[in-house]
Amino acid sequence: MHQHTDLPAALSREIAAMPPLVAMGVQVLAYGDEGLRLAAPLSRNINDKGCAFGGSINSLATIAAWGLAWLALGERGLRADTYVQDSSIRYLAPLHADLVATARLAGGGWDGFAAQLAERGRARASIAVDIALPDGAPAAVFTGRFVAILRGPLLQEHGPDG
Amino acid sequence: MHQHTDLPAALSREIAAMPPLVAMGVQVLAYGDEGLRLAAPLSRNINDKGCAFGGSINSLATIAAWGLAWLALGERGLRADTYVQDSSIRYLAPLHADLVATARLAGGGWDGFAAQLAERGRARASIAVDIALPDGAPAAVFTGRFVAILRGPLLQEHGPDG
Repeated sequence: MHQHTDLPAALSREIAAMPPLVAMGVQVLAYGDEGLRLAAPLSRNINDKGCAFGGSINSLATIAAWGLAWLALGERGLRADTYVQDSSIRYLAPLHADLVATARLAGGGWDGFAAQLAERGRARASIAVDIALPDGAPAAVFTGRFVAILRGPLLQEHGPDG
Repeated sequence: MHQHTDLPAALSREIAAMPPLVAMGVQVLAYGDEGLRLAAPLSRNINDKGCAFGGSINSLATIAAWGLAWLALGERGLRADTYVQDSSIRYLAPLHADLVATARLAGGGWDGFAAQLAERGRARASIAVDIALPDGAPAAVFTGRFVAILRGPLLQEHGPDG
């Protein structure tokens, strides 16, 4: 069996291999039924007004959405390159705290996505990300469309640790 | 007279005060009738696929648009806090080269924007940003809406160097 419980740690290693995300201080907080939650410290992502830079909020949302697809595919034994195609974001309130982003699939399900990817070699997903204020209200809401292009089946002996 | 020729240098100092933009290696390339052009090296903004991370492209576009508004207001002797309200971006082709973003006002003019800001204390602008491939074709196209909130008139003795 594939070691699902290792996937968030493997995602952390993927993130650690991307210089802009290392600079932002991106960390994997949680992964489960609620989606994927990532965080980044305000200090590394601050703007001229002392709050979170909009570009950093967008970057964290983009990698949270990408990471959610990466995990969902990994759980299903699929290896794909996943690209963001387009995204939109609304900034609702200045964020004077660490950045926390939660990504969820927006409609459909990962099983259908994975089946389409396995059958056609590519599949698309819309992923929604909320960036929260400390009180839980949204600081920003993001939606992105992603395309995954199959690289070939993930062999059992060649998991994310391989 | 306000030293217009110093404004791009002053913008460089604003950018140098924002940690995420320092980490990205953002540089001011040019400012003029063509708009504002910023750049960032691929090496600091690379993703798992060896091309520019979408979040970094979005960050560069966001700061290019913000910087364009900052310069346009500075030229007109106005001081304002400018916030991004929302944005959308389409990623058209993988970018395997340094990131170059060119921001332009999308409709209307800066004089009307400045007049509205001076009169009402706030004004909104839509700003378009292209991120180019080395051959000049677009790698990504961005549009953002920004709001500027007046801080008070820029006194002649208190320019961007002050």
